[in-house]
Amino acid sequence: METYTIRSSDVNNLVTGAAFLGTGGGGDPYIGGLMLKRAIERRGPVEVIRNAKSNNAQVVGSAMMGAPIVMIEKIPSGDEANKALKIYSEITGRKVEYITPLEIGGVNSTIPLIVASALGLPVLDGDGMGRAFPELQMTTFYFYGVDPSPVIVLDERGNVSVVEGIDGVWAEKIARVITLRYGGAAYISLYGTTLNMYNKTAVLDTLSLALHIGELLNQIKFNEVLDYLKAKILFKGKVIDVIRRIEKGFSRGFVVIEGMEEYSNKSLKIDFQNEFLIATLEDNVLVSVPDLITVLDMFTFKPITTDRIKYGQKVLIIGIPAHERLRTKEALKYIGPRVFGYNIDYEPIEKRNDVTWL
Amino acid sequence: METYTIRSSDVNNLVTGAAFLGTGGGGDPYIGGLMLKRAIERRGPVEVIRNAKSNNAQVVGSAMMGAPIVMIEKIPSGDEANKALKIYSEITGRKVEYITPLEIGGVNSTIPLIVASALGLPVLDGDGMGRAFPELQMTTFYFYGVDPSPVIVLDERGNVSVVEGIDGVWAEKIARVITLRYGGAAYISLYGTTLNMYNKTAVLDTLSLALHIGELLNQIKFNEVLDYLKAKILFKGKVIDVIRRIEKGFSRGFVVIEGMEEYSNKSLKIDFQNEFLIATLEDNVLVSVPDLITVLDMFTFKPITTDRIKYGQKVLIIGIPAHERLRTKEALKYIGPRVFGYNIDYEPIEKRNDVTWL
Repeated sequence: METYTIRSSDVNNLVTGAAFLGTGGGGDPYIGGLMLKRAIERRGPVEVIRNAKSNNAQVVGSAMMGAPIVMIEKIPSGDEANKALKIYSEITGRKVEYITPLEIGGVNSTIPLIVASALGLPVLDGDGMGRAFPELQMTTFYFYGVDPSPVIVLDERGNVSVVEGIDGVWAEKIARVITLRYGGAAYISLYGTTLNMYNKTAVLDTLSLALHIGELLNQIKFNEVLDYLKAKILFKGKVIDVIRRIEKGFSRGFVVIEGMEEYSNKSLKIDFQNEFLIATLEDNVLVSVPDLITVLDMFTFKPITTDRIKYGQKVLIIGIPAHERLRTKEALKYIGPRVFGYNIDYEPIEKRNDVTWL
Repeated sequence: METYTIRSSDVNNLVTGAAFLGTGGGGDPYIGGLMLKRAIERRGPVEVIRNAKSNNAQVVGSAMMGAPIVMIEKIPSGDEANKALKIYSEITGRKVEYITPLEIGGVNSTIPLIVASALGLPVLDGDGMGRAFPELQMTTFYFYGVDPSPVIVLDERGNVSVVEGIDGVWAEKIARVITLRYGGAAYISLYGTTLNMYNKTAVLDTLSLALHIGELLNQIKFNEVLDYLKAKILFKGKVIDVIRRIEKGFSRGFVVIEGMEEYSNKSLKIDFQNEFLIATLEDNVLVSVPDLITVLDMFTFKPITTDRIKYGQKVLIIGIPAHERLRTKEALKYIGPRVFGYNIDYEPIEKRNDVTWL
C-alpha cells in the first residue's frame, strides 16, 4: 500500500488529465477544478491510496449524474455529495472506509476527492470505467459482479431518493428519471463493495494516470502522452458541424470535422452520448467504444468536452486503447458498440487498418 | 372503538360505492373487486376499525399510483403492495399497526384491505381524500401536517425506490417519474403517522360510507344515495365527445355530454385528470374540485371511470359536496380549482345558482 496527497497545486494537472481520459464527458474540468480547489483550501489536501491490500473494508463510489451541460449551469457546492455518502452509510448500516471515483472526468474525478476531504476519508486510486461512460451500469464493477444498488440520488434542494434496482440497467433507468426530474443533475453514492472486490473489479491507478497525463499536457509534452497511452492521432481538422440535443437526460449528437494538412479532402464524424462513442472516416470506423476518443484543441492540446465543442474549432482527434478490463466479453455486453445502437462488432483500435500509427 | 369485518360478500358493495365516490378515478372497481375477493378467499376477511382511540400507534397508507388505464392492463397480484409496506417498516424502523387507504376508489379502496389481509393487520375506516385525487400531496393528511415521505415506490419486477421529498409536492413529482419509468403503475406505502395525528387529519368513516353507498346503488336505491350524500343531479345526456391523452403519467382530457330530456339543447363539458375536476354548462361552472363529480350509467346507476367513459353512453352527472376537511383554506391551496389551472375561486356546490336541487 502506498499513499500520496493531492494538494491544491495538483488540481490543474488532475482535471486536465481527467478531461483527456474522459473522452468528452465526465464533466467540465474548469468547474471540477474550481470545486476541488475550494474544498482543499477549506478542508485540506486529500489522501489517495494505491495498491491497497485486499480486505473487507467498505468502499463506496461517489459521482455526479446528469447531462454535463447541466453541471455547467448548476455549479455544485460539493456538500451534497457528502450528504449522499452519509445517507448511503445510514441506509446500509455500513461504515464507509474508502471512497472511489466511478469514472474519470473533469468533474467526476474531483467529486470523490471533495467528499473525501470533507469526511476525512481516503480515496482509492482507481475507478469503474478507466474513462467516462454515460450510464451507471457501464462500469467494470458491474461487469465483474458488484451491484450499483442501493443508489442514493440527491439534489441540491434536499430531495433524496434511494434506488434498489433489480439489476444495474434498472438502477440506471430509475436513477436517470429521478435526475431528470431534479432538473438534470444529481449527486449519487453507489457501488458499495469490499476492498477485496474492488481490487478484483476496478480499473486501478487511474487517478495517478490522470495526474501524470495532465502534467505532461500542461507541459505541452504531447508526444509523451501518446507514447504513454499507446494513443494515436486519428485526424486533424476544423469542426464544421455540431448537432447536439438534450434527450432523456443525455447530451446526444455528432460533430463533423473537415480534414486539414494530410487529412485534407476527408471528413471525420464523431457520434456522442455525453461521451464520444465512435469515429467514422468516409464510412470506415476508425475507433469505437470502449476504446477512447479524445478531442484536443490543436494549439493548446487541451481536451474539449462534448458540450464545449463548437463550429470553427481546430482540433486533433486521438484514439486510445481501452483498459483490458473494458475489453472482455462481459464488458462488451454493456459497453460494446452494439449497446449504443451500432451494428458492428468491437475491434480493438490497434487492429483497425485505417489508423495511422505514429 | 368499533370493529367490523369485510367479507367476500361485501366486496361488490365496497367497490361500487368506492367508484361512485372516486369521481372517475381511484382505479377500476371490477379489477379492485377481483383482487380483493381473491385475497379474502386466500387469507380470510379483513378487520376494519372505526372511532379508534387516539394514541401513538403507527399508521401507514397503502395504494397504487399511476394512470388508471395502466392498472387495467397490469392487473396487480396484491403481493407487491405487501412488500411495499414491509419495506416501509424496515426502512423507518417503525412497526406498522394500522393500514389506511390514501383515497377512495375502485382499486385504491381495496389495496389496503388486500395488504391488511396478507399481513394480518386491521384497516382504519378513513382515508386522506374522502374521494380520489390525482396527486400524492392532495390529501388531508398533508394539508394538516403529515408528510408523505418516505414514499416506498415498488414495481412488479422487484424494483424498489424510496423517496424522501423536501415536501409533499416534490415527493409527488419524484414518485411520479419513477412510476412512469416502471411502466405507468407502482405500489406505494407512505404517510406514516400516529393514530393521534390520523384522527386529526383523515377524512374518517369513508370505508363504511363506500359500503353503504355501494349497497344502496346495488339495490337501485338511487334517491337514497342522493339524500344521504346531499348530492344533486347536475345533468343527463349522451356522451358525444371524449378527448383523452396519457400525459406525464396522468390520464387527461374532457368529455362532452349532449343533454337529454329537461337538459335538451344544452351541453355539459367535464374536464378530468385521472378524476373529474370541473363541470361547465355553457361556460357556467356547475361544480369544481374539491366537490365531487360522478358520472353514472343512466340505466344501471353504476359509476363510470374516466378511462371507461366513451361515445354514446347515456349518463347521469351527479355533484356531491366535499367533506369539510377538503374545504378549508389549507386544503384549497392544494386542491382548489386554481391548482388545476382554472382561473376561478372555489365555490361550494350548494351555493352555486345553476345547480338544480332535487
